Amino acid sequence: MNTWGSKLKISIFGESHGEGIGVILDGIPSGLGLDKEFICREMNRRAPGKSKLSTPRKEADEVEILSGVMNQKTTGTPICGIIRNTNTRSQDYTPNLLRPGHADFTGFQKYGKTHDFRGGGHFSGRITAPLVFAGAIAKLALAQEGITVGSHIRSIHGICEESFLDISLSKELLQNISQKEFPVINDSTGQKMQTEILNAAANKDSVGGIIECAALGVNPGFGSPFFASVESLISSMMFSIPAVKGIQFGKGFDFCDMTGSEANDPFQTDGKNIYTTTNNNGGINGGITNGMPIIFSVAVKPTPSIGMEQQTVDTDKMENTTIKINGRHDPCIVQRAAVVVESAAALAILESKLI
Amino acid sequence: MNTWGSKLKISIFGESHGEGIGVILDGIPSGLGLDKEFICREMNRRAPGKSKLSTPRKEADEVEILSGVMNQKTTGTPICGIIRNTNTRSQDYTPNLLRPGHADFTGFQKYGKTHDFRGGGHFSGRITAPLVFAGAIAKLALAQEGITVGSHIRSIHGICEESFLDISLSKELLQNISQKEFPVINDSTGQKMQTEILNAAANKDSVGGIIECAALGVNPGFGSPFFASVESLISSMMFSIPAVKGIQFGKGFDFCDMTGSEANDPFQTDGKNIYTTTNNNGGINGGITNGMPIIFSVAVKPTPSIGMEQQTVDTDKMENTTIKINGRHDPCIVQRAAVVVESAAALAILESKLI
Amino acid sequence: MNTWGSKLKISIFGESHGEGIGVILDGIPSGLGLDKEFICREMNRRAPGKSKLSTPRKEADEVEILSGVMNQKTTGTPICGIIRNTNTRSQDYTPNLLRPGHADFTGFQKYGKTHDFRGGGHFSGRITAPLVFAGAIAKLALAQEGITVGSHIRSIHGICEESFLDISLSKELLQNISQKEFPVINDSTGQKMQTEILNAAANKDSVGGIIECAALGVNPGFGSPFFASVESLISSMMFSIPAVKGIQFGKGFDFCDMTGSEANDPFQTDGKNIYTTTNNNGGINGGITNGMPIIFSVAVKPTPSIGMEQQTVDTDKMENTTIKINGRHDPCIVQRAAVVVESAAALAILESKLI
Amino acid sequence: MNTWGSKLKISIFGESHGEGIGVILDGIPSGLGLDKEFICREMNRRAPGKSKLSTPRKEADEVEILSGVMNQKTTGTPICGIIRNTNTRSQDYTPNLLRPGHADFTGFQKYGKTHDFRGGGHFSGRITAPLVFAGAIAKLALAQEGITVGSHIRSIHGICEESFLDISLSKELLQNISQKEFPVINDSTGQKMQTEILNAAANKDSVGGIIECAALGVNPGFGSPFFASVESLISSMMFSIPAVKGIQFGKGFDFCDMTGSEANDPFQTDGKNIYTTTNNNGGINGGITNGMPIIFSVAVKPTPSIGMEQQTVDTDKMENTTIKINGRHDPCIVQRAAVVVESAAALAILESKLI
Repeated sequence: MNTWGSKLKISIFGESHGEGIGVILDGIPSGLGLDKEFICREMNRRAPGKSKLSTPRKEADEVEILSGVMNQKTTGTPICGIIRNTNTRSQDYTPNLLRPGHADFTGFQKYGKTHDFRGGGHFSGRITAPLVFAGAIAKLALAQEGITVGSHIRSIHGICEESFLDISLSKELLQNISQKEFPVINDSTGQKMQTEILNAAANKDSVGGIIECAALGVNPGFGSPFFASVESLISSMMFSIPAVKGIQFGKGFDFCDMTGSEANDPFQTDGKNIYTTTNNNGGINGGITNGMPIIFSVAVKPTPSIGMEQQTVDTDKMENTTIKINGRHDPCIVQRAAVVVESAAALAILESKLI
Repeated sequence: MNTWGSKLKISIFGESHGEGIGVILDGIPSGLGLDKEFICREMNRRAPGKSKLSTPRKEADEVEILSGVMNQKTTGTPICGIIRNTNTRSQDYTPNLLRPGHADFTGFQKYGKTHDFRGGGHFSGRITAPLVFAGAIAKLALAQEGITVGSHIRSIHGICEESFLDISLSKELLQNISQKEFPVINDSTGQKMQTEILNAAANKDSVGGIIECAALGVNPGFGSPFFASVESLISSMMFSIPAVKGIQFGKGFDFCDMTGSEANDPFQTDGKNIYTTTNNNGGINGGITNGMPIIFSVAVKPTPSIGMEQQTVDTDKMENTTIKINGRHDPCIVQRAAVVVESAAALAILESKLI
Repeated sequence: MNTWGSKLKISIFGESHGEGIGVILDGIPSGLGLDKEFICREMNRRAPGKSKLSTPRKEADEVEILSGVMNQKTTGTPICGIIRNTNTRSQDYTPNLLRPGHADFTGFQKYGKTHDFRGGGHFSGRITAPLVFAGAIAKLALAQEGITVGSHIRSIHGICEESFLDISLSKELLQNISQKEFPVINDSTGQKMQTEILNAAANKDSVGGIIECAALGVNPGFGSPFFASVESLISSMMFSIPAVKGIQFGKGFDFCDMTGSEANDPFQTDGKNIYTTTNNNGGINGGITNGMPIIFSVAVKPTPSIGMEQQTVDTDKMENTTIKINGRHDPCIVQRAAVVVESAAALAILESKLI
Repeated sequence: MNTWGSKLKISIFGESHGEGIGVILDGIPSGLGLDKEFICREMNRRAPGKSKLSTPRKEADEVEILSGVMNQKTTGTPICGIIRNTNTRSQDYTPNLLRPGHADFTGFQKYGKTHDFRGGGHFSGRITAPLVFAGAIAKLALAQEGITVGSHIRSIHGICEESFLDISLSKELLQNISQKEFPVINDSTGQKMQTEILNAAANKDSVGGIIECAALGVNPGFGSPFFASVESLISSMMFSIPAVKGIQFGKGFDFCDMTGSEANDPFQTDGKNIYTTTNNNGGINGGITNGMPIIFSVAVKPTPSIGMEQQTVDTDKMENTTIKINGRHDPCIVQRAAVVVESAAALAILESKLI
């Protein structure tokens, strides 16, 4: 189903090559100022066609707000934002040839013959644009509470930079990274990553990577044990993003090489506040925020659309064959996905605060 | 909140040291035979006190079914199973000393002074017992559809065995592993893992590990793009399990070191069925099952309760101090958590089938 | 919140005087043919400005479908329909004078200063237009299962016609009524009702009435005991319609004057099917459809907007004063609400079938 | 499904003749004192076997609280209350003879052969006992906010007393009525009603009636326009109560005989507060509370179980036949249902406050 959340409800709709895509965001408190410039900036961070690193398909991605806003302020009622599809080339798609790594096969299994296969249809990464719009509003609501959400590219095809867990985090650092076209802490490592992406593109291939995300200023006490743990809320949103195949909070999979005495975050007090001296748990204990930064990372697989010839099946003839995907595609989507990950995180954290 | 699911609803309740714990499972079709012996066996896989590897706290963990069953068959109405708490030693707990890595601090932040801190209260790993009960019923429902869910311990504190992705999987193999007290593919590696756990225990320390889980026989077409992706459903359940801090599907984080041409699973047909020749995506494309085995792994952090002295805060005095946790605790919970992971997976997969 | 349903999800948005209003309908199976002419006809039944009986505010009420449809067929993904607001006269509204019977006061209580008061904002009856669009699609889905939903005006300001419970119902009768501008069984009674409405208008007053709705061809077994009873689903939808203040199923409040032996519907069989010889329960027993027509009626209060002077409060000055509502208003909304009631019923019945 | 609510979740389970019945109530804030005597008194108001007016089946109806409470205070986690079934006479039921007015037929249609038919199974009015337990806790939570919920029997088989809309309501009046065995305002009218019930019993017949319910002290601003209107929340709970077939808010169906100028509630201010001089809308405008008492009434049909011979079908032989229901049954359930209606209202109003 296409609605997420209990107190903050997000309903998305649209197909890559239909009339338009969009989102209803319900549950945003009334009176929040909508900084349109900020929203536009966030949309641009995801937008394609800005550099050689991404697909040359250009889309205006301008959001029209139909409801829930009066005089630049939220009214407390559902906010609907829509984006028109203006630049679609359906002739690039041959529905009978299953694209490996894509949802063509599973889409037909689920929706049958009337499945809208064009450009991935409802499965398209393009549907993350409305998520960024909704996430930008969530970020504005969180900012009012002193919460900042940011991210960086932790690795591209094996080229890594340091983790947020190992450096001193600040609102300024996160904002600084968010303004970079290639959002990393260390620009020289970023250069190497970009070279790696261009090499993949030159080989008609693609690469993936890891995005690490942080939320600063989160009060302790958000979330719930078990089903509405902050980790459950964030992860269910993250796996709504196409190409995300893994998530870990704090030390995550590295916990498995640690002992309890290394892994536990010792508590300390300055007489007024209680905090932990390390943040191996990524700001969450027992599903509930502990006041330390929420830190998690997600694995983004290499873009499935590649120009190289691949083995596949022709579903009309039920025969083995090969496919070369022409169209316009990203050799890597990690740099565009960073803002999507932040948006999804902002929505999940706002929900954890509201419920 | 403590209810999960849309078509299959799971509501859990209980505290470690209250009267009892339990679950309501709603949405199980009528007419399913309840194999009580199987349910009992599953409960025993999680039960403590069986060996030196786990806490000596022994609990009968016998489930009483109050509703939804007549003549050993489900009636289609909600099934409520309860488990009495019989062996509680509340005197082991000092609420003013925050146990590092536990939810004591966050519990007080969320619930305030009336928080039931005893034995972790509602945060206790003991609340996973009702999940195993519910999961056992979900497994019985899935078995009717030819679906088998199983798991193995992939690693303990750095000692690894091979992945389900790299071997030939069968129902028999999964069942065989499930009957082992220490569920691994390779028993000699399992011996080394157990030694590692006993070493940690000897040091008053603890260790964690990775559980890898597989579901065989899943038809293509379960799940949805975006918010109800199979990955979203499974991950939201997994992060409901205390101590789980990461999850990855198929190659997961290893995707980040691969190119698209390596990562994509080529389609092939025998003229009748369509399948993929590799399973890097862990049986899921675009959030929907593709008919290949669902394979994922979760990171379980080291048990936070350790006998070693740790830095912490006395919340009564708001002073820094140390804590030594006596009580009865597991030096490693991975071996007991395996059946919990399978149960949570069975519930999520059944939900993905029903919605 | 503005989302309804579990398997069939309906999310509405919009304000009377904002950019536009609309709905996302999620859960409609793929492959349903969208008869645009039928949808248009349904929209017209609700549209204002057709006669002296309703507000002269004319709106095109044309629905643009943004998603979920390809080649006139549903694709199984969310269907978003939007309607532009083109004919708004915000100057008719003075936010500081509370209109009696309206939601001005409660809107300000809930949403505060940023409440969009213009034309009732999100509370406006205009928001029922998207419901009719969604309901038309639900009717098409139900028609495939042989289910027909129809209604008639049972009474206007005390002028009554016979009940669906007392006549022989057929698909043809329901369709015949739906094509009338003033939907009654008996046109001469309908004439008297219309005179009553025009009299009220002449007095700058308004009147209400009762709409009776029926669904034919419903299989036994839809719905659930308790919280998802068919009555619960239908009533929660009906009370989403502004001005509805009561609902009764079958004999409803008349049950209170009957004995059990009069009230119980005797079962009978022709050797093949089981049915009841009366339908006092309106087709529902224990919350579940029994195969007889679902029959219920709703009370619609007189339009709160009247030209007559009324006592009220000026919220700026916190003083008692009077208000005369000019603007463009319906002296009676019952005739326009009939299709809204049918639409809401179709959505609820489809949900009861799907869950 | 058997879970209701978004912020306040109520999950009920159980069959009339199974092991036990019960409820999980999730979302009650921590720190609420559980007045066990009050809860017990509420349970007794519903309990059978107290007088000739109700079934001689006696049940202890003692609730055991398994979770969510420590030292007589709520902990904020789910509260599970269970009630054992101790006095079941399954031999009274013959599953092949459909009881008119009951859910036997629809139960078999929904659940098939494994339907638990004994005593109505999951459809039994007995399942309202857990609702009363949950409602009692909701009343305690509402009482902390100054909200009182009460009811009276408005009519029995045509014998009426005055409406709450026409008298001066106070907390004391509501509490006074709640302590009566036969809860009416006017005891002499109550005597006539009781005579009517006993007459019906003497004829092996049954009668129904109207329960009117009020909530005092409700702040303005609870609820939402459309789907989560207070009317939608309350009505969906009310139609979860077996035998309820109608509901109306404020003037309800009487609105249809009024003009707008009569129906609208004029606003007035004392310079400090805003209120209405009449309460025709029953405390709700646009789905949101306006600060006036919430007043609604529900129609309860005559008990379907009657001793008189009735026409029915033998489903084994698929033949028409007759049935005489022996067993132990209420000639009228209205007096026992009053507290159930209040409980369901308290739960719905608390939910409208919390979401």
